Amino acid sequence: MLKTKNTFLKGAFVLPKKNSAHSILIYDQSLLAYDDFKILKKSFVHTYEVSAGESLKDFAAFPGHMEKILSLTEGIPTADLQIYSAGGGSVGDFCGFMASTLRRGVLLKHIPTTWLSAVDSAHGGKTALNVGGFKNQIGSFYPATENIFIRKILEGQGDARRIDMLGEVLKISLLNKKVFRKICEKTFAELNDNEFIWQHLALFIDAKMGWVKQDPLEKNGIRAVLNLGHTVGHAFESGFHLQHGFAVALGVVFAVRLSLQKKVLSRSAWLEISKMPLYQKFSVDLDLFLQDHFKLKENFDLNFNLIAQQLQKDKKKTSQLSVKYIFLKSIGQPLPRSYPISEIVQDLKRQCS
Amino acid sequence: MLKTKNTFLKGAFVLPKKNSAHSILIYDQSLLAYDDFKILKKSFVHTYEVSAGESLKDFAAFPGHMEKILSLTEGIPTADLQIYSAGGGSVGDFCGFMASTLRRGVLLKHIPTTWLSAVDSAHGGKTALNVGGFKNQIGSFYPATENIFIRKILEGQGDARRIDMLGEVLKISLLNKKVFRKICEKTFAELNDNEFIWQHLALFIDAKMGWVKQDPLEKNGIRAVLNLGHTVGHAFESGFHLQHGFAVALGVVFAVRLSLQKKVLSRSAWLEISKMPLYQKFSVDLDLFLQDHFKLKENFDLNFNLIAQQLQKDKKKTSQLSVKYIFLKSIGQPLPRSYPISEIVQDLKRQCS
Repeated sequence: MLKTKNTFLKGAFVLPKKNSAHSILIYDQSLLAYDDFKILKKSFVHTYEVSAGESLKDFAAFPGHMEKILSLTEGIPTADLQIYSAGGGSVGDFCGFMASTLRRGVLLKHIPTTWLSAVDSAHGGKTALNVGGFKNQIGSFYPATENIFIRKILEGQGDARRIDMLGEVLKISLLNKKVFRKICEKTFAELNDNEFIWQHLALFIDAKMGWVKQDPLEKNGIRAVLNLGHTVGHAFESGFHLQHGFAVALGVVFAVRLSLQKKVLSRSAWLEISKMPLYQKFSVDLDLFLQDHFKLKENFDLNFNLIAQQLQKDKKKTSQLSVKYIFLKSIGQPLPRSYPISEIVQDLKRQCS
Repeated sequence: MLKTKNTFLKGAFVLPKKNSAHSILIYDQSLLAYDDFKILKKSFVHTYEVSAGESLKDFAAFPGHMEKILSLTEGIPTADLQIYSAGGGSVGDFCGFMASTLRRGVLLKHIPTTWLSAVDSAHGGKTALNVGGFKNQIGSFYPATENIFIRKILEGQGDARRIDMLGEVLKISLLNKKVFRKICEKTFAELNDNEFIWQHLALFIDAKMGWVKQDPLEKNGIRAVLNLGHTVGHAFESGFHLQHGFAVALGVVFAVRLSLQKKVLSRSAWLEISKMPLYQKFSVDLDLFLQDHFKLKENFDLNFNLIAQQLQKDKKKTSQLSVKYIFLKSIGQPLPRSYPISEIVQDLKRQCS
């Protein structure tokens, strides 16, 4: 598997002149608000504007985009063609799938512009589109040759986007002891800080890539552990329109509680985790969320059914009725197990009671 | 790169019962005319009918197919799911691209039912779709785990389909000395024979795979030699609606003549080639074709322009004005060179004079 180079820049990236004739920048229109992005964009001859979000990942609209990209890049020899993707996770998924299929694969470089994509989705080479409203049903494994991080653009985001990213940081801290030790005593305010995140970005990336490298094409089951918190997280995200990272944070807390209850997680490890300010913050968020959508709802049965339906669509199914669920044994030691969907719904009811 | 297993069967393939719950057969509707295919189809629980041809490869229609395939295969775990593709080259390209992207890749097995796909397109893992009328603009490298050849179905085809396949056989004989020696003295009637082709199918496949293995992802230029005859062949095919294999045969003859004229091909090798009955047959066909479409046409300039336009769309471009053209030095020794499109058009005019 191709190794991705990570480049960390304080200010604007400028495309080298020698590459301008055969490079194309695909970017999210919201980036035009950033001066550093305007400088970046000016250095490209070929550009293509998109609007980030799930609708960009709709496969039905994809052939139309592909046709336009093909005509923009028509004269460029395949071996020279480079796609630069500037935006968050949806833009990265869109451009990654495009680069992997256009002329059977052309060079791809990511400029992740949200903290969440900088920490998570830009790494590991997964691309995905949605089909008929079902999330990430098609895609490819196609790592970028380079990820370019621009601090000024990443810092320009609001507080909500940083909290979204901290959900994935909570997850990776439970999958990697080094990350856990680094953040376990930090207050939420210390973590929710541009300087701290920028300084530790490489650490978070390495922790994820440590798992990816053992199973780049998701063939032997190891990479699946990165799905910790995502089974229930995705169901919350799709069912109640939450931000991805925040939904994952709730799913991680759910998985920790379930692992303790099933006696998979040792009591001592659970005590360590539950002392973490970051875990505590999202644990309170999960309680509030369960209260709002299940406990206090008159028609809470409808919402449990909604979650069951969403779990049925999970890509990690092991049979008609079960999914691969990631439990936690201890910090840095996940445990994937086939687990019935009906049990997850029962567990959710138990956590609400 | 995954090794493809080749299975040669006299009569119908029957799916093992243990695979029926998680396999889907995608097949060309014309196959329903074959009893052996009806037996094959009966052994599948999940089937999906398509109509072979270039319209099947239209990317704009692809998301609609993908949505139907997704709902047909919904409950099947990704690791178990197998796509069986039954048809010629267009069905193989369609199913190959689908298998490579569905849930980021599922198992693929080809049942090539035309001689041309059995000899050529089922091997080497190239998949492709057309975008906005431009041929094979997107795709992937995704070899099948198994190719299943059913003699009775292959033999059920008419004479025209066998001649189409012999174009690719001419090509591979010039790229492989063993194949050349085997067919160089055979009369056209001896070659155009089901028994002969069936007996030599594995030889032709091995000759192609010998080149593919040296460059499976088309990165170092070696695999490109399989494009011998295809530059001009594709232009004839698209410009004048010829069958693919027949157009390639004309392109191969053109390439041999051009290689001799440019003194790339030795006179002694040319003498050997020009004594081959198969070469002689297609050499006459090229002369007839040039006469019909260029020499005897009042508005022949229009047709030269048409060819120039088609060459502009060639995927193997090395610059705005040139393509990678495969010359021949001797039997088994191709020579790829960047070559101007304008020169090819001049050479075509020369061969017409």
